[in-house]
Amino acid sequence: MLTVDEVWALIDREVSVLPAESVPLESALGRRLAEDVSADTDIPAFSRSAIDGFALASDSQPGRFRIVGEVRPGMPASPPPRSGEALKIFTGSALPESGVALVMLEDTVTEGDEVVVSVAGTTRLVRSRASQSRAGDVLLSAGASMGPGAMALLASVGQARPLVSPVITTTHFSSGSELVPVSETPGAGCIRDSNSPLVAALLAEAGAELLHHARGSESVDEAVSVLEPLKADLLLISGGASVGAYDGTGEILRRLGFVIHCARVKSRPGKPLIFAARGAQIAFGLPGNPLSHFVCFHLFVRRAIDRLSGFTPRKFLSVRLSGTPPAPDPRETWWPARVRGEAGNLVAVALPWRDSSDLTGLPEANALLRIGSAGINGLVDALLFGSLES
Amino acid sequence: MLTVDEVWALIDREVSVLPAESVPLESALGRRLAEDVSADTDIPAFSRSAIDGFALASDSQPGRFRIVGEVRPGMPASPPPRSGEALKIFTGSALPESGVALVMLEDTVTEGDEVVVSVAGTTRLVRSRASQSRAGDVLLSAGASMGPGAMALLASVGQARPLVSPVITTTHFSSGSELVPVSETPGAGCIRDSNSPLVAALLAEAGAELLHHARGSESVDEAVSVLEPLKADLLLISGGASVGAYDGTGEILRRLGFVIHCARVKSRPGKPLIFAARGAQIAFGLPGNPLSHFVCFHLFVRRAIDRLSGFTPRKFLSVRLSGTPPAPDPRETWWPARVRGEAGNLVAVALPWRDSSDLTGLPEANALLRIGSAGINGLVDALLFGSLES
Repeated sequence: MLTVDEVWALIDREVSVLPAESVPLESALGRRLAEDVSADTDIPAFSRSAIDGFALASDSQPGRFRIVGEVRPGMPASPPPRSGEALKIFTGSALPESGVALVMLEDTVTEGDEVVVSVAGTTRLVRSRASQSRAGDVLLSAGASMGPGAMALLASVGQARPLVSPVITTTHFSSGSELVPVSETPGAGCIRDSNSPLVAALLAEAGAELLHHARGSESVDEAVSVLEPLKADLLLISGGASVGAYDGTGEILRRLGFVIHCARVKSRPGKPLIFAARGAQIAFGLPGNPLSHFVCFHLFVRRAIDRLSGFTPRKFLSVRLSGTPPAPDPRETWWPARVRGEAGNLVAVALPWRDSSDLTGLPEANALLRIGSAGINGLVDALLFGSLES
Repeated sequence: MLTVDEVWALIDREVSVLPAESVPLESALGRRLAEDVSADTDIPAFSRSAIDGFALASDSQPGRFRIVGEVRPGMPASPPPRSGEALKIFTGSALPESGVALVMLEDTVTEGDEVVVSVAGTTRLVRSRASQSRAGDVLLSAGASMGPGAMALLASVGQARPLVSPVITTTHFSSGSELVPVSETPGAGCIRDSNSPLVAALLAEAGAELLHHARGSESVDEAVSVLEPLKADLLLISGGASVGAYDGTGEILRRLGFVIHCARVKSRPGKPLIFAARGAQIAFGLPGNPLSHFVCFHLFVRRAIDRLSGFTPRKFLSVRLSGTPPAPDPRETWWPARVRGEAGNLVAVALPWRDSSDLTGLPEANALLRIGSAGINGLVDALLFGSLES
């Protein structure tokens, strides 16, 4: 039986990074950049006005000026005005690289084709060419997360089809003859299949695509014939609580040609976890209980998705445990918790958790605490997966 | 000129919560629950086995038992076994409500139709009916965020079409004759439109839907005729740096029948922000610079989206400022920052920010710091919008 750290090392070793792909910029949100991106020009590419107002000759003093034209945004720069002349300009208007000083509209009074200026002109209001970056400077490095700021930055330098991490495609197979769809009322001895919506949501949060979903009974033959034609980067099998479920999952995977690298992990919950590979394809057999699903997904499936995508694995956060710590167990325990910010501190409260079928605490959970990891300062390692609130 | 707090109060007063809607469970991810959800049955609805093994009569001691049948998951419970008899059971198998004790498969040896049990039977391995919740108990309250855990919980109680917050529909209009699409090389005096990908990404992150996107020059007539037929809950107009852009936006909105509630806000960046309403429809005129877009979106547009959706506004986090604090300014300043967890603390580093056209720091930013808000303990208010890492 492997430890959690050993399973992580196994995933890192067995899972290969899938090739990056070039996609339209709007499809890059939430992925990772797969190559360095440089400025295609100086930034700004030309000197620009930071204000609405007038451009005057250098060193102009307060006085009366003749308005000789205007430069609207989108027009090429005009030559510098001569002494006593003014050019009307706007935020973003192109300016010559030297020979101008600006005054803000607020410091002027326009009288017909003349403007009375009450202050000296300044170059402080010019955004000079290359004042932010020079052509060729690396603006964003490979591995950067494509959030809104990265999208805007790539747009500004013309990256209409950036090279980014691929979206991981997934097949989910949910087995167990006691399972009925959410819309049905379970008969005696049956329960609703809550693992399928859980897995679909976890995959969506991880940026993976659920290509295929199927539900089966406990028949290995049936499962193999359903799964054989379905191709995806990742195969997840939810054991359900069916007869010999975990042996069943192992047999299904072997018959599909997967090599099983791990069948049990020394963790609580989640002991009977299967990790398998078939070339570049990865599979997990997840223990049937919802909490085990939740924990094993965050600990293991998410790590494989990140690895397939070329992301670095998520790091632990050190958090302060508030209240009574959960009792330790011979197996390393991963406890659902709520982490929040409190006066500059990261504070975790362990959520009530009766047994691994208990999902009433899960909506509150935004982290898993690694129980047994408490250090000398009362700090505990946490894997944070939800947003942080105060 | 209103303060940021005054604009927030205005948004809270003028923006009405849109009606909740009942949607298929799979569409509820990322929304908020709009009504309390109760258990439809006791949870578990029947007593179940937590293990693979055997059910014996109560108070059974180690010994040899005759296997008289099995109860697979999904089958109704059998009556309690009689003394000396054993029922094969599995994780999830239904059990009678009393009269049984369980032993784990690991503590038994099966010999033909008999089983030798080395331990006393226990009821500790039974998950009793209603041990988690009783029928009618509220499991999740209105306002809860629909993450994976909530999806699983609602599935387990048969909420196939929960009542949740609506998706806010949006129109984005980007104006400015200096703007060219991302795929084009800008001519003299022109720049690429980076605000459109930025706004699209910010809307996606906020769970809103971008229904319409249009780009225009500086003509008010043209803008009005483009925007007139487009209906959405929210209208965002990016000023660009075009001629009289902000007056232009105000005029466009007035001609579309909007009432302008605010045209300037005492903040840096973002001074010329327009907030307007037309019945239940909300509009913002965003200052043209990318950083102003970013800040105004998080401060104001996001608040309106949250309000339309019935979410409570996001709260500040108190964070510890590391390094030199940005210089204060007469206007309240919102500074892009990177907040991370460090040994139980929330630590913020202010990112370099040259001027409001500078977006090189934005990919790193996961928070805005409210500069001027530093309290006696060196804590600063932060609005966190990205994920937190160590």
